[in-house]
Amino acid sequence: MTNPVTVEVSRGGRVESAHRGAGAVVDANGRILFSFGDVERPVYPRSAVKAFQALALVESGAADRWALGDDELALACASHSGEASHVALAAGVLAKAGLSDASLGCGAHWPLNAEAARALAASGAQPSALHNNCSGKHAGFLCLAADQGWDLGSYIAPEHPVQEAGRAAIEALTGERLDAERRATDGCSIPTYAVSLKGLALGFARFATGEGLEPQRAAAAARLRRAVVDHPHFVAGTGRFDTEFMSRFGARAFTKTGAEGVFIAALPEAGLGIAVKADDGATRAAETMIAALIARFAGFDKAERGEAERFLAPEFRNWRGVPVGRMWAAGPLAAGV
Amino acid sequence: MTNPVTVEVSRGGRVESAHRGAGAVVDANGRILFSFGDVERPVYPRSAVKAFQALALVESGAADRWALGDDELALACASHSGEASHVALAAGVLAKAGLSDASLGCGAHWPLNAEAARALAASGAQPSALHNNCSGKHAGFLCLAADQGWDLGSYIAPEHPVQEAGRAAIEALTGERLDAERRATDGCSIPTYAVSLKGLALGFARFATGEGLEPQRAAAAARLRRAVVDHPHFVAGTGRFDTEFMSRFGARAFTKTGAEGVFIAALPEAGLGIAVKADDGATRAAETMIAALIARFAGFDKAERGEAERFLAPEFRNWRGVPVGRMWAAGPLAAGV
Repeated sequence: MTNPVTVEVSRGGRVESAHRGAGAVVDANGRILFSFGDVERPVYPRSAVKAFQALALVESGAADRWALGDDELALACASHSGEASHVALAAGVLAKAGLSDASLGCGAHWPLNAEAARALAASGAQPSALHNNCSGKHAGFLCLAADQGWDLGSYIAPEHPVQEAGRAAIEALTGERLDAERRATDGCSIPTYAVSLKGLALGFARFATGEGLEPQRAAAAARLRRAVVDHPHFVAGTGRFDTEFMSRFGARAFTKTGAEGVFIAALPEAGLGIAVKADDGATRAAETMIAALIARFAGFDKAERGEAERFLAPEFRNWRGVPVGRMWAAGPLAAGV
Repeated sequence: MTNPVTVEVSRGGRVESAHRGAGAVVDANGRILFSFGDVERPVYPRSAVKAFQALALVESGAADRWALGDDELALACASHSGEASHVALAAGVLAKAGLSDASLGCGAHWPLNAEAARALAASGAQPSALHNNCSGKHAGFLCLAADQGWDLGSYIAPEHPVQEAGRAAIEALTGERLDAERRATDGCSIPTYAVSLKGLALGFARFATGEGLEPQRAAAAARLRRAVVDHPHFVAGTGRFDTEFMSRFGARAFTKTGAEGVFIAALPEAGLGIAVKADDGATRAAETMIAALIARFAGFDKAERGEAERFLAPEFRNWRGVPVGRMWAAGPLAAGV
């Protein structure tokens, strides 16, 4: 099956590049309201399911026992930019559990935020695992392990109870069986399990509404959603899609990026979950796709659509600030379709 | 026409992402030896034609009158990384013509090389137009304009004789008529004209061999090719494809990246030109496509193919250095096809 063109990128009067992709809009009963492309094929959700992986931290009571705040729970669901605020908060989460960055198994990388990377370099320092965009998620894993008395040194291994809890939560929410055949290793060294876009969208419809979930899990989902929506800076960072979008539309849509062109949204008011993947792995395409679907299915009014325009059809400028092109949702996602 | 899948990206046991594209391998008589996808549709070549745009600098005698060295001619064909060596050389080219970075119209951006960007930040400085990856090309434009007594303040405008000379060279080499309808604005503010991949490949077959060119132009092409091949650091930078590939295979293949997934190669020994574009604009896909075509059409022996493996099927490692996936040429570009 060849997925359709969903995003076009123009320069001058021509389409310069085009992205293909697939996606599904699903309600909490598993009813597909809209789909395009192959939504049955399992794809790695990567960081798009961090909120599912954080459920056990809340459900177990560990988050309360370590007195984690909503900003810290948002960071546990984050692919953060490594800004000073993110790094300090991640260190604080670890400190609450009596730990330090020495326990983090995610590896170190320079901050995603270029200004933060330059500031770190200017200070003469090198990046640590705290700067890794996944350090908040890993700090959450360690808080859970420490609370439960599980081994701390092996928490990134697929068979560790922390990772098993994450897998079990994704299985329960998406309704798909995630065995070793579905497993690969993520950028931050934990397992990632391939799930269909249809299943992923179902999972986020349940996450959005609590429908079909045990009360304790539904409460944990609601708490994580609220934490992220109330602290959008901590789930991504300055200028990033998730932060900018949820700063404006957080009550209408929880969003989360994943690597290689995956993006999800949970729409609590509409009772829907959305999952998309750009075939080629491009983040710019995934952002445009998820924005187009949210604008259509979250019931945006005219004013909201106007405010969402910068996400739906961003303009490109060159190094002198001259407008040179634009990007827009196309094919099944074209405006007005 | 739907272009075929040409590059696959794996994680674990699955293809995680895939890229589509088109490309052509053409000789200096315009005979197509191999093609895939739509090679008739005009696409913006972007920085892939910088060597064509530098021809007038050499043909006019301006390069000799300003006593430009081969490293400086390589920089005129470059999308450089903004490392200290690139910046110093660009400043030197301008100084030879009695100019400074104040005349550059390309705009400023932080160095493409992350380490160079961090070093610049650590020094407390801000990037100038010299750090722009196109500063060498622009310095060459200014050298030509200063030599010819043309206006210096308007050299980036489409109607300026410097840009007209570039357009005329691309027209002559590719055999395509480039009027205003084909024109858009490039990232560095000069015009870019859309050309078919077939025409672009023909242009680089002529550039590779000198066949079909006036003697003066053929000599200028040979000089620019040699300049780049002898100074591959100055056409790109540390760790970049063009630099790494030509450091090993420069005598066999001149290569040049362009934005939005364009890549070209000129094979002087085989007498061929190659042009590819990834539909989605991904550089990683364009690199794999051009490497696969060069390995097939430059007549690589077994040892060379072995050495080229890192370009043909690069491995990906995560932040802890664990191998997590691989990329390879697929479909019409699959090894052994």
